[in-house]
Amino acid sequence: MHAMEMISTHPDVRGDTNDVLIRCIEECYDCAQICLSCADACLAERMVAELRQCIRLNLDCSDVCLATGALASRRTGSNEALLRRMLEVCAEACRLCGEECGQHVDRHEHCRICSESCLRCERACNEAAATITPTRQ
Amino acid sequence: MHAMEMISTHPDVRGDTNDVLIRCIEECYDCAQICLSCADACLAERMVAELRQCIRLNLDCSDVCLATGALASRRTGSNEALLRRMLEVCAEACRLCGEECGQHVDRHEHCRICSESCLRCERACNEAAATITPTRQ
Amino acid sequence: MHAMEMISTHPDVRGDTNDVLIRCIEECYDCAQICLSCADACLAERMVAELRQCIRLNLDCSDVCLATGALASRRTGSNEALLRRMLEVCAEACRLCGEECGQHVDRHEHCRICSESCLRCERACNEAAATITPTRQ
Amino acid sequence: MHAMEMISTHPDVRGDTNDVLIRCIEECYDCAQICLSCADACLAERMVAELRQCIRLNLDCSDVCLATGALASRRTGSNEALLRRMLEVCAEACRLCGEECGQHVDRHEHCRICSESCLRCERACNEAAATITPTRQ
Repeated sequence: MHAMEMISTHPDVRGDTNDVLIRCIEECYDCAQICLSCADACLAERMVAELRQCIRLNLDCSDVCLATGALASRRTGSNEALLRRMLEVCAEACRLCGEECGQHVDRHEHCRICSESCLRCERACNEAAATITPTRQ
Repeated sequence: MHAMEMISTHPDVRGDTNDVLIRCIEECYDCAQICLSCADACLAERMVAELRQCIRLNLDCSDVCLATGALASRRTGSNEALLRRMLEVCAEACRLCGEECGQHVDRHEHCRICSESCLRCERACNEAAATITPTRQ
Repeated sequence: MHAMEMISTHPDVRGDTNDVLIRCIEECYDCAQICLSCADACLAERMVAELRQCIRLNLDCSDVCLATGALASRRTGSNEALLRRMLEVCAEACRLCGEECGQHVDRHEHCRICSESCLRCERACNEAAATITPTRQ
Repeated sequence: MHAMEMISTHPDVRGDTNDVLIRCIEECYDCAQICLSCADACLAERMVAELRQCIRLNLDCSDVCLATGALASRRTGSNEALLRRMLEVCAEACRLCGEECGQHVDRHEHCRICSESCLRCERACNEAAATITPTRQ
């Protein structure tokens, strides 16, 4: 992805990027696609009835990651307090989805990949949240 | 909208609906459309340069409302703890956007409508969050 | 919803609204929520393995409806040619999803409601597409 | 991104991936983030009033790319006819946005990056559309 390249050109950023946050943006988009794919692959499994909770958490996580990636991408104006809370919720969504997928890694390779992605995204969100100091609102 | 009609037919719900949550779903989708429209209308105003912060909060609020509406619509499996946190973040997104729009009500009718929608959605999210008792996770 | 109220206040619209298009916007958001709910309800059914195709079309239709609702909501600048094509694709997504859901109306009330919503949205998209005369691009 | 790794594990795919389509999925998510960032950067420019059309096309393109990336990621069931049309609409959204951004490359580096991304995504969508042979519907 090209989030770093893009955001460094923002007129209010001018190269002074928050690299931890930008890495988080890319993890969010990646995890959104992976969770959507994992839900879709779970749905095609013979044991789909046992994967309902996994599909639910996949879909929720995908939605939260996309919204978080969008919020984290914006640099015009200021919404730090909201962004920090959203990053924390996204870390939680990833933790829950990653733990659920983690229970299916022996049988489903897609759950293994998704579980690892959720762990990466959870860490990236937590690290990014720690860099944000709400100054307004 | 038809969220009540739909969710009452879910096999795990069977008519035992959380009406406060369902009202919140409809407010979220409505507010998502309104905030997107308000950002678009602000962008067309002559004083657009003074409305940057409003557009930013509109777009963030629209994204958060959509994700919240999606999470709140699902009844298969269980993700209550995440849903409650998401509802709280959505209430915050609506509060911030509603306050910003509230500063432009004298000059921009779209900001007045959006401000009122954000207030309704904020209340609906807070009321819905209060109904959710996380039992797992 | 409040799409009419909002869009009529846009500075480039000033009350001269395309009412057919605005009705379509509301159908798109409504159908997006309904299709998402139908996918979720299908997933909870005992016969979920037989509803895979229905869930797939539900999820695709929900995504297309949301994107179409967003494009159709914007009035700043001009993108008519794209909007018309998107409305046509959305009508097709609704037709396919509505037909699939229509095969399950006897057993699943959520599919009946979704099927009717898809039919309404398909018509609204086709009617809206017919009102749009691409003048640029 | 990891779309290839994920989709190759889908039970109905089993390694028999459509590599052109998978590359397109990654371009769609990338372009969605880039277009959202470009809209945000344009909004912060001093000459924002002259960039309204660019912001409009950026936002529309971002929405269409995300929906297309989602549809293209699903392999359960079948929706080829819809997917092909969506890929074609996405190519058109990218063409229009890329041309508009292309007019601002001398003054705005973000428009240069976005213009190049739109061109890549347009090509990827057209190439992917050509691989899809609707067999049902």
